[in-house]
Amino acid sequence: MVMGIFTVAIVLLNIIELSNGAITSGYQRKSEPSMDLPLESFPPPPGHSAPEQVHITQGDHEGRGVIISWVTPKKHPGVVTYWEAGHEQKKHKTSSKTTHYKFYNYTSGYIHHTLIKGLKHDTKYYYEVGQHEVARRFHFTTPPPVGPDVPYTFGVIGDLGQTADSNQTLEHYVSNPQGQAMLFIGDLSYADDHPFHDNRRWDTWGRFVEKSAAYQAWIWTPGNHELDFAPELGESVPWKPFLHRYSVPYKESKSTSPLWYSIKRASAYIIVLNSYSAYGKYTPQYSWLEQELPKINRKQTPWVIVLLHSPWYNSNNYHYMEGESMRVMFEPWFVEHKVDIVFAGHVHSYERSERVSNIKYNITDGLSAPIRDSSAPVYITIGDGGNVEGIANNFIDPQPHYSAFREASFGHAILEIKNRTHAFYTWHRNHDNEPVAADSMWFYNRFWHPEEEPSTIR
Amino acid sequence: MVMGIFTVAIVLLNIIELSNGAITSGYQRKSEPSMDLPLESFPPPPGHSAPEQVHITQGDHEGRGVIISWVTPKKHPGVVTYWEAGHEQKKHKTSSKTTHYKFYNYTSGYIHHTLIKGLKHDTKYYYEVGQHEVARRFHFTTPPPVGPDVPYTFGVIGDLGQTADSNQTLEHYVSNPQGQAMLFIGDLSYADDHPFHDNRRWDTWGRFVEKSAAYQAWIWTPGNHELDFAPELGESVPWKPFLHRYSVPYKESKSTSPLWYSIKRASAYIIVLNSYSAYGKYTPQYSWLEQELPKINRKQTPWVIVLLHSPWYNSNNYHYMEGESMRVMFEPWFVEHKVDIVFAGHVHSYERSERVSNIKYNITDGLSAPIRDSSAPVYITIGDGGNVEGIANNFIDPQPHYSAFREASFGHAILEIKNRTHAFYTWHRNHDNEPVAADSMWFYNRFWHPEEEPSTIR
Repeated sequence: MVMGIFTVAIVLLNIIELSNGAITSGYQRKSEPSMDLPLESFPPPPGHSAPEQVHITQGDHEGRGVIISWVTPKKHPGVVTYWEAGHEQKKHKTSSKTTHYKFYNYTSGYIHHTLIKGLKHDTKYYYEVGQHEVARRFHFTTPPPVGPDVPYTFGVIGDLGQTADSNQTLEHYVSNPQGQAMLFIGDLSYADDHPFHDNRRWDTWGRFVEKSAAYQAWIWTPGNHELDFAPELGESVPWKPFLHRYSVPYKESKSTSPLWYSIKRASAYIIVLNSYSAYGKYTPQYSWLEQELPKINRKQTPWVIVLLHSPWYNSNNYHYMEGESMRVMFEPWFVEHKVDIVFAGHVHSYERSERVSNIKYNITDGLSAPIRDSSAPVYITIGDGGNVEGIANNFIDPQPHYSAFREASFGHAILEIKNRTHAFYTWHRNHDNEPVAADSMWFYNRFWHPEEEPSTIR
Repeated sequence: MVMGIFTVAIVLLNIIELSNGAITSGYQRKSEPSMDLPLESFPPPPGHSAPEQVHITQGDHEGRGVIISWVTPKKHPGVVTYWEAGHEQKKHKTSSKTTHYKFYNYTSGYIHHTLIKGLKHDTKYYYEVGQHEVARRFHFTTPPPVGPDVPYTFGVIGDLGQTADSNQTLEHYVSNPQGQAMLFIGDLSYADDHPFHDNRRWDTWGRFVEKSAAYQAWIWTPGNHELDFAPELGESVPWKPFLHRYSVPYKESKSTSPLWYSIKRASAYIIVLNSYSAYGKYTPQYSWLEQELPKINRKQTPWVIVLLHSPWYNSNNYHYMEGESMRVMFEPWFVEHKVDIVFAGHVHSYERSERVSNIKYNITDGLSAPIRDSSAPVYITIGDGGNVEGIANNFIDPQPHYSAFREASFGHAILEIKNRTHAFYTWHRNHDNEPVAADSMWFYNRFWHPEEEPSTIR
């Protein structure tokens, strides 16, 4: 916050502001190759069959559970030892479910998932995976009890990949002590961009993100690069590597698939949807969401945040309108239930929308343009993690009125929920120092304080 | 055809014609209860564990294969004996794959599927299922070789169910010696409308349609009533009864799921899609259709017919716009590849569209109304089989310009392909005698004769 004034000054030098207030940042990132770092850049930890690719996610609906996952090259019992910080004499042991898979010519290591429930809220725990000389120790802090005014800070990253840009994005995030949990918006490893979907890239990615994902919950959203649908390789069951490697607590929210689910964390109700499963009426995802949204108690969790991969409002020529078919199904519900923010990825760029909706259209009435809607979410496209496919720098011109701010740079975001009415949001491009916010906004909660936010007035 | 003039006279007494030529038939069907006939109305055949629910479908891509399916209450080897008519001395035997399933408190019988390939074209075959005293004999005729001018006649039924109305629809069809194969547009038994999705209703439906489905190929389209998604009963795997009972040759068209596939039959290329699987970009169904449409050789199969359950153009208040999300994804391809006809069900009524498309919309340009398009298919909604849910008699008023003819009656249709340029189509309401066509149209092939059809000029 100390740097806030400086930030504004920088931005003013670069922006192109339209008469309607929409901003296309003039910031130009340096052109550079986006290659995946060599496999050797992500070595396994030392020791025979040492636990690697350690990551954690929330393990129940309320935040008192954690799922700890890791891989061992050889078959070992998946034992986790954990204890409350300061209570090292009182260690607990728990065992895991272990799985593995083949994908074309690749055979995975042994993938372990341990669910621990009933932890204390707002408490630091240490845990060890593996035993004896290859045991590795990590720690995490559970979230505070769910409540309407509980401050909590989320990181937001999408489409990360494993390039030098990816590394810069993650380093920026890790160097920022603010983020307490990560909202990851899909497209993890980009293994499928390599010949035969080289699944060693799933392993290297797991090693790459460990520095953060072993220490705080990463909330997983499926993206198109997790589909790994390759009938030409004899791999015609979608989601195989992703579902083996990333375990989520979907049954806790009565979902029937790990590809969509919800959690509560502090003052936020987080809904993860899948852009690549069926969402037509009567389908499992549709039926689940139809029942899920009315269950949210804004007096308990004021902030409703949706994560989905393919954006609904995006003015980049890359992937333009790909999210339209899902928007048609679900947007009326988002407006009815006053969703605060929708995070999407997929487009390798950054964009923030105005609060708009486009739900009047009925085929013949001609009413098909988005309108300002104070009950609508803000849509943030943050597929700018920095992956092998490069930047999406071809914006639709002129900037449509629904687009508030857009910039073709890599980066990540921080969402600081302050209380039931206010949250401060900042987007950080990789080419600035971490404290610089290239885009920022005070969010007003749609249930408790449904006023127009200053940054959208201009 | 002899009755053609009479038909027109009847219709003229009833129609409401708008200035744009759209017609809402004034025909009013008698109000009567739509109850499923009692279980006892569909007795199993006599004999201990006799084969029942016999049905056949095309078994390969070209029409030289057939899949024969049936159920036995007890476990028996699934043997089929078959021979060419007139060659009884040269019998063939083949065995089947047998499956069964549980659904909540129901346990199925043994469901047998036998694939026979390499049959002669245009040839009558007899076949027997079961052995010894409970053997049952049926017959079918294979289609002629695929070719551009091969005449062939399809029946079309959707949303059939098992009421007195359903029975009337099927009796009308069976009494008509024209139909050589059935295009079934989804929603078969409506078992899921009974408590606990009473799967005995799948058995009674199989017995009910045997009178036709054992003698000619029924081409199966999945509908929402085949989902049987009931997590409240512990049944959270969609499509379970349907996929166990109805086998289709999906691998022959390189599909990875029995819920979408294609076949060639005579001069028609028939594409079955699923309204309730994922159709977003990158998904298996999307990827398959993207590759499938360019493969069609109109010089071999001039007629491209798509079957899907949830209609894209429908002016009934029941299920209005439910197909919109799928239309957004696939309609541009249908126009590009000049699909001739799209049959849908779902809405329990009858409607035929003009040739229209609605593919210009790009969120902000305001171009969102359907326009006349000579490359677009005619959309026919024929969910009027007569099921337990009753008629959908609440049309949007005034009739939209994209709607050519609509009527809230039960019935079925006949599509007579004459050659590469012409096909004669008739819709038969149940309350008329079979020869009466309540709606009819000469289709001109979109590839060979893309002129405007007379019945859409008015």
